[in-house]
Amino acid sequence: MSLSIGSIAFDTIENVHGKRERIVGGSLTYYAYAASLFENPKLVGVVGEDFPQEIIEEMEERGIDTRGIVREKGKTFFWAGKYSDDFLERETISTELNVFEQFDPKIPDFYKDENNVFLANIAPSLQEKVMEQLGENKFYVMDTMNLWINIDREGLEKVIRKADGIILNDEEARMLTGKSYIYDAAKALKEYGVKFVLIKKGENGSMLYFNNKFTVIPPYPVETVIDPTGAGDSYGGAFMGFLEEAEEINEKTLKRAMVYGTIVSSFTIEDFGTERLKKLTRKEFEKRFKDYAEMLNFNI
Amino acid sequence: MSLSIGSIAFDTIENVHGKRERIVGGSLTYYAYAASLFENPKLVGVVGEDFPQEIIEEMEERGIDTRGIVREKGKTFFWAGKYSDDFLERETISTELNVFEQFDPKIPDFYKDENNVFLANIAPSLQEKVMEQLGENKFYVMDTMNLWINIDREGLEKVIRKADGIILNDEEARMLTGKSYIYDAAKALKEYGVKFVLIKKGENGSMLYFNNKFTVIPPYPVETVIDPTGAGDSYGGAFMGFLEEAEEINEKTLKRAMVYGTIVSSFTIEDFGTERLKKLTRKEFEKRFKDYAEMLNFNI
Repeated sequence: MSLSIGSIAFDTIENVHGKRERIVGGSLTYYAYAASLFENPKLVGVVGEDFPQEIIEEMEERGIDTRGIVREKGKTFFWAGKYSDDFLERETISTELNVFEQFDPKIPDFYKDENNVFLANIAPSLQEKVMEQLGENKFYVMDTMNLWINIDREGLEKVIRKADGIILNDEEARMLTGKSYIYDAAKALKEYGVKFVLIKKGENGSMLYFNNKFTVIPPYPVETVIDPTGAGDSYGGAFMGFLEEAEEINEKTLKRAMVYGTIVSSFTIEDFGTERLKKLTRKEFEKRFKDYAEMLNFNI
Repeated sequence: MSLSIGSIAFDTIENVHGKRERIVGGSLTYYAYAASLFENPKLVGVVGEDFPQEIIEEMEERGIDTRGIVREKGKTFFWAGKYSDDFLERETISTELNVFEQFDPKIPDFYKDENNVFLANIAPSLQEKVMEQLGENKFYVMDTMNLWINIDREGLEKVIRKADGIILNDEEARMLTGKSYIYDAAKALKEYGVKFVLIKKGENGSMLYFNNKFTVIPPYPVETVIDPTGAGDSYGGAFMGFLEEAEEINEKTLKRAMVYGTIVSSFTIEDFGTERLKKLTRKEFEKRFKDYAEMLNFNI
């Protein structure tokens, strides 16, 4: 089972398809719903007094281990954002850290045997605290976002140097490395010492750099995007979820994990927030996986 | 064999890797070298008195049928351009139409039996003249560029309405349709009445819209691009070259044709102008085709 730390949040999302107020979101939430299709992810996170217990119960029913989620005095982390009509730009309207401001993640002892650890998009200082408690012998995969590159590059770089793999989007990869050609950016990221670099390119698919070799896979074609929020986090969840099933980390298993991420995130964006994702069944996943494989079969 | 009309040119190209003066280029030239790997393309074009006969002979040796290339009084079409260091922008420094100004394409009678016709990137008025001479019962595939969308949208739209398939890049697709989401742009292009829409996305691969279905394939990863000039035209050449081998036009054959385009254009960009492309062997193509198929094999 994978262990993950990240944010649990209320999100207010506005885009061309409408507006949703204070729906459940956060990097850890998307991660967990996606991973839960394949395994029983163990979460470490924090919520405030205003967070509904029934959501926690809903997660438990889905096979998500929520014992590492603590409830603190105060309000749950809140984020509000607005997308441009073509989804190419996203403006942050409001960020209220709330209980996150004082969050000091503690890994429960009964979580400590897990080998695969995902540091979802969260402050580098918190990612580092997890690494300190779990030690060096774990398989760490991390995500991040432009915010941390801007306000805590040093802390972020420290975390990357200790990670086994990094997953981030193309814009972040370019921002972090100063390289505009994506292959150059991937190579520069590898220099931090990670074993693999995975770059998510949104509607353009994703790319892996591993063992000095590039693997590029296309997106699953989604004709109408309702809300791209959480696409990257659920990519990470499905990616790690597959790696739980895999016997070793190699080119083949990383590639298949990418396909899992691609397929699951293609569902995420079909509705607001976690709406589509939390109803997703393994059967629906398998069907789309098959369609994707068929799309890439060019034997005649 | 496919029949094609397009430009033959001298190009002066400047980019981060250097500068090449007055090298042979043009949409028809790239098309022909790419297609010649799979068939004997028949060209209709014009050159000036300054165009070396040995280049024509070089093409003939490569199996390209140059009998439809006429030599007119005056100078060969000339284009000079400069790429930004990251190749994301291309500035036209100079365009001299020269012999193209008066070009009135005539399809030789011995070319008229060919079924598959490619209208490479050239003025819509010239593409239309070819259609007028060959009639309605051909399989027309066309390319275009931003210049024609800007200066002759009406003429261009007239040609698209008579075409069976259109191949263009993502920027052009967005410009022509006013749709920023690429799936919407593809659907809007389909409305012109074409059977298929193929959108080339440069370093992000390519996308087909056919029979109300999308197929998206990734690029072949090229770590160092020396010169992207002609990538799109050679994609078209390899695409049509494969369709010559195919018994019918269906989802499977179009998809495989896309892969041919992807692989051949990945060679084109590895050197300036046609340098890499004109030396490309079928064996080298087969090797990279196999690597590409292996990259997309995610069975474990």
